Amino acid sequence: MGFGDYQSEIYLNGLADQQPPFTTDPTALEAAARERLEDGPFWYVAGAAGSGATARANREAFDRRRLVPRMLADATERDLGTTVLGTEMPAPVLLAPVGVQSILHEDGELATARAAAATGLPMILSTAASHTIEEVAEANGPGAPRWYQLYWPNDDDVCASILDRAKKAGFTTLVVTLDTWTLAWRPHDLDASYLPFIRGVGTAIPFSDPVFRAALAKPPEEDLISAVLQWVPTFTGTDKSWDRLPFLRAHWDGPIVLKGIQHPDDARRAVDAGMDGIVVSNHGGRQVDGAVASLDALPSIAAAVGDRTDILFDSGVRTGADVLKALALGAKAVLYGRPYAYGLALGGEDGVRHVLRSLLADLDLTLGLTGHRSVSELGPRSLASE
Amino acid sequence: MGFGDYQSEIYLNGLADQQPPFTTDPTALEAAARERLEDGPFWYVAGAAGSGATARANREAFDRRRLVPRMLADATERDLGTTVLGTEMPAPVLLAPVGVQSILHEDGELATARAAAATGLPMILSTAASHTIEEVAEANGPGAPRWYQLYWPNDDDVCASILDRAKKAGFTTLVVTLDTWTLAWRPHDLDASYLPFIRGVGTAIPFSDPVFRAALAKPPEEDLISAVLQWVPTFTGTDKSWDRLPFLRAHWDGPIVLKGIQHPDDARRAVDAGMDGIVVSNHGGRQVDGAVASLDALPSIAAAVGDRTDILFDSGVRTGADVLKALALGAKAVLYGRPYAYGLALGGEDGVRHVLRSLLADLDLTLGLTGHRSVSELGPRSLASE
Amino acid sequence: MGFGDYQSEIYLNGLADQQPPFTTDPTALEAAARERLEDGPFWYVAGAAGSGATARANREAFDRRRLVPRMLADATERDLGTTVLGTEMPAPVLLAPVGVQSILHEDGELATARAAAATGLPMILSTAASHTIEEVAEANGPGAPRWYQLYWPNDDDVCASILDRAKKAGFTTLVVTLDTWTLAWRPHDLDASYLPFIRGVGTAIPFSDPVFRAALAKPPEEDLISAVLQWVPTFTGTDKSWDRLPFLRAHWDGPIVLKGIQHPDDARRAVDAGMDGIVVSNHGGRQVDGAVASLDALPSIAAAVGDRTDILFDSGVRTGADVLKALALGAKAVLYGRPYAYGLALGGEDGVRHVLRSLLADLDLTLGLTGHRSVSELGPRSLASE
Amino acid sequence: MGFGDYQSEIYLNGLADQQPPFTTDPTALEAAARERLEDGPFWYVAGAAGSGATARANREAFDRRRLVPRMLADATERDLGTTVLGTEMPAPVLLAPVGVQSILHEDGELATARAAAATGLPMILSTAASHTIEEVAEANGPGAPRWYQLYWPNDDDVCASILDRAKKAGFTTLVVTLDTWTLAWRPHDLDASYLPFIRGVGTAIPFSDPVFRAALAKPPEEDLISAVLQWVPTFTGTDKSWDRLPFLRAHWDGPIVLKGIQHPDDARRAVDAGMDGIVVSNHGGRQVDGAVASLDALPSIAAAVGDRTDILFDSGVRTGADVLKALALGAKAVLYGRPYAYGLALGGEDGVRHVLRSLLADLDLTLGLTGHRSVSELGPRSLASE
Repeated sequence: MGFGDYQSEIYLNGLADQQPPFTTDPTALEAAARERLEDGPFWYVAGAAGSGATARANREAFDRRRLVPRMLADATERDLGTTVLGTEMPAPVLLAPVGVQSILHEDGELATARAAAATGLPMILSTAASHTIEEVAEANGPGAPRWYQLYWPNDDDVCASILDRAKKAGFTTLVVTLDTWTLAWRPHDLDASYLPFIRGVGTAIPFSDPVFRAALAKPPEEDLISAVLQWVPTFTGTDKSWDRLPFLRAHWDGPIVLKGIQHPDDARRAVDAGMDGIVVSNHGGRQVDGAVASLDALPSIAAAVGDRTDILFDSGVRTGADVLKALALGAKAVLYGRPYAYGLALGGEDGVRHVLRSLLADLDLTLGLTGHRSVSELGPRSLASE
Repeated sequence: MGFGDYQSEIYLNGLADQQPPFTTDPTALEAAARERLEDGPFWYVAGAAGSGATARANREAFDRRRLVPRMLADATERDLGTTVLGTEMPAPVLLAPVGVQSILHEDGELATARAAAATGLPMILSTAASHTIEEVAEANGPGAPRWYQLYWPNDDDVCASILDRAKKAGFTTLVVTLDTWTLAWRPHDLDASYLPFIRGVGTAIPFSDPVFRAALAKPPEEDLISAVLQWVPTFTGTDKSWDRLPFLRAHWDGPIVLKGIQHPDDARRAVDAGMDGIVVSNHGGRQVDGAVASLDALPSIAAAVGDRTDILFDSGVRTGADVLKALALGAKAVLYGRPYAYGLALGGEDGVRHVLRSLLADLDLTLGLTGHRSVSELGPRSLASE
Repeated sequence: MGFGDYQSEIYLNGLADQQPPFTTDPTALEAAARERLEDGPFWYVAGAAGSGATARANREAFDRRRLVPRMLADATERDLGTTVLGTEMPAPVLLAPVGVQSILHEDGELATARAAAATGLPMILSTAASHTIEEVAEANGPGAPRWYQLYWPNDDDVCASILDRAKKAGFTTLVVTLDTWTLAWRPHDLDASYLPFIRGVGTAIPFSDPVFRAALAKPPEEDLISAVLQWVPTFTGTDKSWDRLPFLRAHWDGPIVLKGIQHPDDARRAVDAGMDGIVVSNHGGRQVDGAVASLDALPSIAAAVGDRTDILFDSGVRTGADVLKALALGAKAVLYGRPYAYGLALGGEDGVRHVLRSLLADLDLTLGLTGHRSVSELGPRSLASE
Repeated sequence: MGFGDYQSEIYLNGLADQQPPFTTDPTALEAAARERLEDGPFWYVAGAAGSGATARANREAFDRRRLVPRMLADATERDLGTTVLGTEMPAPVLLAPVGVQSILHEDGELATARAAAATGLPMILSTAASHTIEEVAEANGPGAPRWYQLYWPNDDDVCASILDRAKKAGFTTLVVTLDTWTLAWRPHDLDASYLPFIRGVGTAIPFSDPVFRAALAKPPEEDLISAVLQWVPTFTGTDKSWDRLPFLRAHWDGPIVLKGIQHPDDARRAVDAGMDGIVVSNHGGRQVDGAVASLDALPSIAAAVGDRTDILFDSGVRTGADVLKALALGAKAVLYGRPYAYGLALGGEDGVRHVLRSLLADLDLTLGLTGHRSVSELGPRSLASE
């Protein structure tokens, strides 16, 4: 059975008068989430930095590029599988790290972890999760591939403690987010004073971390404000720089990926520093308003380091064709975020699973209909010249 | 009388207080169909794959190109006629294959066949019609030109049986659709679980085909689900490839046209394989979301094979100027689809005829007003440099 | 007093609690006319051919080009005056020919003629006017400059009769419309069966022409249909061509201007044929849907014949800046149409006058604010490179 | 404390159930002002010349350019400070001159002056203020940096008197507006006959100026019309030219900046004339409809004179990213106008302060998140190639 079979399943369910959950249309999906969620959680997920220019640019960059389908390629049997940094995955898609998911659904990251396991796609767990590392790992299950996203704490002990827990919980690859060492200017969140961390949502790291808790005068459940005032500087600034990467290497024995790369020189430097991979990303337009579209940044980065490292991509992926375009321009796999968060809001584990299966079905069908049998066949020739 | 005279007829009818059927405006036409039809049938016709990016790109590619009208060219007497692959047609326009037309109007393909005959334009009958080949041929009439569109079955016996029936029913040219060997991800249809074939609309091939019926345990009217489960794999996948074209050639003695070509290399290969023509098409944006606009694919294909084969075009044609632009870029004729389907929904045979006559009048007038006397005069010089 | 003083007049009227007529904003003007007029007359003026692509392109071409204002140029004293083909005009603006104006206001062309005389701008009277040549000339007054627009009849006697009357009525320059030898496909008019000529609005030429009337079995007021059936072929087609221009020259002793030129080769041919001027125009997008924007056609035509003839321009002019852009690209003056027609609908003679004065004030102020003292200073250097 | 700390302050206020004033979103800010203000004052601020094409172009030019964020740059400690023409400022932002602010809030320029002082940003006081020079200076306070904007009067005595008062009131730099020697065609203001000066709002210069008052037959409070009729010609036209700049130099011993430069030749001429700086500006699209976007004019001007003078920039700045883009293209600092005027309307001094702090926080965070430690690091390399 291929991923595309989800299409038949939906139609056949329809014959039996079963509706698919909410929608299979990425645009309608966001609209449905808008209706379900309160302003705060919705805009925390959907919103962007400043005027939203980067978020719009991300989508425009996809629309501007065009696939050229090939005919009679006998692409009936297709293999979407790939291996990135030692992790085998059934399709070149990972669940992007999304923080504090309990604001979207009471099951939060646990539902996401279960849905990821059901599809076989790797989940990247956010440092800012609303469940502990161990709880999420348990929900994800023993055989499931999982990576850990790090908001790099300034306190080395806290950092080492987190990394140690992640390793013990079976997370294999470390994804270090570089672009969020301070939070951006996000009008929607500011106007609602909505910052889930500050409200102590869930048991986000490092509130649940023993090393961090030990450093607090009082635990956050007794004095949230003072805990927050200590929490903010832990993750903000200060001296993270290229020189500090050896610390991470020393405390993580699996692959390390730097997330947020947007310039070829930074990509080269990451490779030169011995990092195993990069994620070309502008954080979905959430950090730098007016930043280059992530897809526009990809080709020159692929030209710079594509032969020396594994490039991952995120920011703006909504459809199967989007995945193909990113791969054609040099990505090995993509991270997929907001849509599954909407699925979570709308249907918990089932909702996430539906959204993931929809993307994979769309991807599988579009891969075949463009005349490719495997994702490794994609390249610049798959696209029309601009 | 030229096609442009339909304009005077409408105005004179107006003097006598007769309204033309619905509208002469392509945009208003879709809006009128939207009001008339249920969600399912409307979106089945109007919808597109994925995010709809290709459908929008098709229109944008027309808008971007501009005709340069010439003055005092004495184009009063005009000849829109052309001959494509041995079929004489009064204008470079064919009725594109549109499936299961009974979802739009109870007369379905029969109404379309009669309207086509009334205008003299060739109809291309879809494999997925809701009336049998023989019924449509009878409605089309003995003298009318008609082509047959093939969704290529995997079962060679079923395929041969269909081709044999089409030939006997007077269809002269075979149009083989290459881009739909599996259905695309179409959110509107999925969200409504609307797939007319699966609901057994009409007597679509191969349900009505004796060879296919003989292979079924029970006929579809008794056990639709099991018939569908056999029907789907008949048309999906699997091993259609360039090597299989000789089978079609062996079972069809008229011209064969490959539909869905979007890359110059595929166009060359089609010609090298002895095919008689191609249709540059992205299926109106219904198959590959994010595909190159069909009109943008045309020039390089025309440069590659324009001197060796007849190029037909579809995807996005709405106005007379659109036809001229496609011809100027290398097409010999265009296929025109969704608008006449809307006409069918709004007025049956009369509705189709009105829509066709409107396009032809617009085409005739615009041909003359740009200073051309025949469609053969069109070429790159008819367009402004971009 | 310069034209810009109309600005102060409006503000001072405001101090005295007088409102200016309707609006000074071109966009709001069309909206106001939409509210005032019935569908038929409004769309007859505002509508365009086919999908409206050319009308949109006309505006987009203006928006794409940008003026570069110069500072400290001491442009307090400005002279907008120019002389085109022997006609002195206080500003490089003429009233474009607009037909059957009585559908907009009962005073029709008479109101327009009076308003034109009040501003000193030349009026170009349409062949399809709803008042006779002589009535309009009288309303325009003895000293006012006026040109005559010809829909070129096929009947030479009718043509000669019309030209003779126009000359006797004091029209100095002949503007021959080339792009409307047959009416285009205009959905709004077709859907309403609205064609004012066919309904015998006013006494449009040639219904009022003695030569034409003499040829009718019955005058139109007794048998409109048969008169129309004779009228249509008189103006439609047939053999107007470059070879027939000497006939016009023989029957008109003033300057002759060809209107509707969109290709440099046609411009060269007009000059070679001894014509005195051309109007680069696509008839406001009313004839060829998908035609090149008139402003985009202008530069190459100016390069071809700008040193040998007077180039006029129309199609899309709405603001003072638009006039400057057309002049910078090679036009000697512009024709201004739909906006004054809206003014006529909203306020008769006063309305036309207000719209004209608004354009001239905007033009005058913008000329000065860009650092020019006279319209002759405009050239490609006035625009930013694209 | 850096400017970015305003972000934390807002979130922490939110924890304590305090809402930030109105909004932190530039788009929502204009909408909020629209609701608060009457048509006249709102459009006087928000409106533009003619069709608004230049105002739209200003924003489009920002959106088209894209920043390329750099990672791990250790930009925790940032210095936004700069010195322009001897004025130290904590960030490269000045309050653009905005006239007659009492139409927005009863405290008018006094509120603005206080808010400017609170942030440390220089205020540029408009000649057309609704409070006297001396009152504003007092509100701004002894230590605050302030510049004076001059609408250059034709009467040399009036001019000298104004300059003398400004100097005495502690204004250090003179900003001479070149682009408004006559008011543009502004439909919104014209249609409402809204011109605050003419209605004698406040005590705008020169109504409050003793030299001007002495020249009037009656003071404006007794005979407004006649005062206006004398006022208009004082500021309109006439012979301001490059030759007259020495007069200003002779009467002002601080730096002089010419505002409204849009062409490299004018920039060169300004420098050659000994001026100390220029403001690349199209007055926010309020003067020449169809003018080049101010940001598009900047690069060639920077190439022409960037090494010889201080270039300031305005027109279209709304976000921190906009400031960075202007600086990357050669500006030393930007003038920021309409948004703080909306802040004034919505909240008086507190409102202005909130808008300024929001911009500075956004700027500070975006500077850091793009990998810069100081504004001096910005340059063409900060932007993606177009």
